[in-house]
Amino acid sequence: MSDLPNQVEFHEEGPREGFQMEKTRFPLSERVALVEALAETGLPQIQVASFVSPKAVPTMADASDLFAAIKRRPGVRYTALWLNETGFRRAASTPGVTLDGKIFMYTTESFCQKNNNCSVSEMQRRQADWLALYDASDLPLEQVYILTAFGCNFQGEVPLSAVVDAVQYVADLCRETNRPLPDFYLADTVGWANPEEVKRRIGAVRERVPDARIGTHIHDTRGLGAANVLAALEMGVDLFDSSIGGLGGCPFADHKNAHGAGNICTEDMVFMCEEMGIDTGINIEALLEASRLAERIIGRPLAGKLMHAGLPKRG
Amino acid sequence: MSDLPNQVEFHEEGPREGFQMEKTRFPLSERVALVEALAETGLPQIQVASFVSPKAVPTMADASDLFAAIKRRPGVRYTALWLNETGFRRAASTPGVTLDGKIFMYTTESFCQKNNNCSVSEMQRRQADWLALYDASDLPLEQVYILTAFGCNFQGEVPLSAVVDAVQYVADLCRETNRPLPDFYLADTVGWANPEEVKRRIGAVRERVPDARIGTHIHDTRGLGAANVLAALEMGVDLFDSSIGGLGGCPFADHKNAHGAGNICTEDMVFMCEEMGIDTGINIEALLEASRLAERIIGRPLAGKLMHAGLPKRG
Repeated sequence: MSDLPNQVEFHEEGPREGFQMEKTRFPLSERVALVEALAETGLPQIQVASFVSPKAVPTMADASDLFAAIKRRPGVRYTALWLNETGFRRAASTPGVTLDGKIFMYTTESFCQKNNNCSVSEMQRRQADWLALYDASDLPLEQVYILTAFGCNFQGEVPLSAVVDAVQYVADLCRETNRPLPDFYLADTVGWANPEEVKRRIGAVRERVPDARIGTHIHDTRGLGAANVLAALEMGVDLFDSSIGGLGGCPFADHKNAHGAGNICTEDMVFMCEEMGIDTGINIEALLEASRLAERIIGRPLAGKLMHAGLPKRG
Repeated sequence: MSDLPNQVEFHEEGPREGFQMEKTRFPLSERVALVEALAETGLPQIQVASFVSPKAVPTMADASDLFAAIKRRPGVRYTALWLNETGFRRAASTPGVTLDGKIFMYTTESFCQKNNNCSVSEMQRRQADWLALYDASDLPLEQVYILTAFGCNFQGEVPLSAVVDAVQYVADLCRETNRPLPDFYLADTVGWANPEEVKRRIGAVRERVPDARIGTHIHDTRGLGAANVLAALEMGVDLFDSSIGGLGGCPFADHKNAHGAGNICTEDMVFMCEEMGIDTGINIEALLEASRLAERIIGRPLAGKLMHAGLPKRG
């Protein structure tokens, strides 16, 4: 009936994507406590903070202090986001950051301009430069994010060909520079995906890079998040970015209500997988504790459902 | 890849299920305005109110007045809920109620006791009596709701056999009394369903009554609502109960946070279907207007996502 994986991996984005979009910076001690609580759940990877311009994103200005304060749990990867060389150098010089070589492919000019103030082709060139930077740090290329892979709030529809072209660009780059294929993430930060398109686009990407692992970065902007995750699962996808409590939302993505536009909710999606018999390696009770901690820190009800309804009582 | 239907039907439950669970009764004029706005959207059926004990559910005490005040749109069915013969007689004597013959099958003793203060077998007997009542009113049996078809907050797991037995009971009753099979709804008012169980249980029910139409009544209690709808769609289900803005929640279902435990959100699910190329016959802009009206009436942010994010701008 479907290609459901037996095991999936969730990468937690809440501490970075969730807190990045808040108007105020929350106390360091609370964000440390949240990261530490998340690390206790079995999550293999937590994106802790972003190294971006403190002017553009003041809530992330203390990223280095945050990394310094975390009591680290062995086996957990504490990653960071950067959007340019300066950011990468800051991350690389911050003790405690798990550096993961990643590049970002843009599918539309307007979103690329908003996020990077440059054109798609200029960004492609810069990404190739990043590879040299990563090589110099002995960092393999792990992840490629195909951004606005389903649609763009500024430009509208994103043709499938733009996604496939971006994938092909990276595949060619890898072949030319003799490096293994990275994981390919289809990102829908702006909530344009629907289950049929998820299947269609994942299918098309897989056809282009059959040996690569495919992941998704899905937001629940328009209420289809869980369905889009299911569609991805049915295509055999086993790699999901998500946010505790459904935190998140891209500050530059032009949403009227950014609070409603968060990532897919980690604990709801972990619950879904486990209920479907798919192993996540995560302790759901510990995850619910972390989500309630996140809610206490943020100080308003989060979008997550399971944290409010509780686990079913099997009796 | 799947048995997606070309066309689906959404039955709106918000005015009944959404307002029934509120602590206060909202002004009649506002509820009338909401029903009238919903009727403009293309929705074929709207459950307006319930005829239940005014002591148990005081917010529905004015159900008859509500029906009397609605300016009716031709072609739309304005239905009501009743849970016993008294309720049915009130509904039947209220002008403007579209009477639809329906019965309720319980799968667990505890939920049956909570909702009806009687045992499952007593309730089955009563449901058979309802048929005589419907016959006397020349009302065909249209719908059977299999309640707690996935799990029960009081009893825990509900075995698949309990669901199939309930379906078989009705199928036998129909054969014995020489009447066509009704539509069979699998109800998950309490949020126990997951996509795999949705597929498994719908498959098992379809095997038992291959000629019957199957519907679902799904709540988004634990964040799997959209995924469960997708799973049902993939099984060819073309009949969905839903609530505008995600309103709803069963007042007797023992949820800590009833506000988070609403029905699947009509406009989000209509949006999903239309984006997938499945025709709903509904004007999504009009539906969004109705959801915003519902939010203004209720006076707090509703769970619906599309109403806050807005439709994608296709440019």
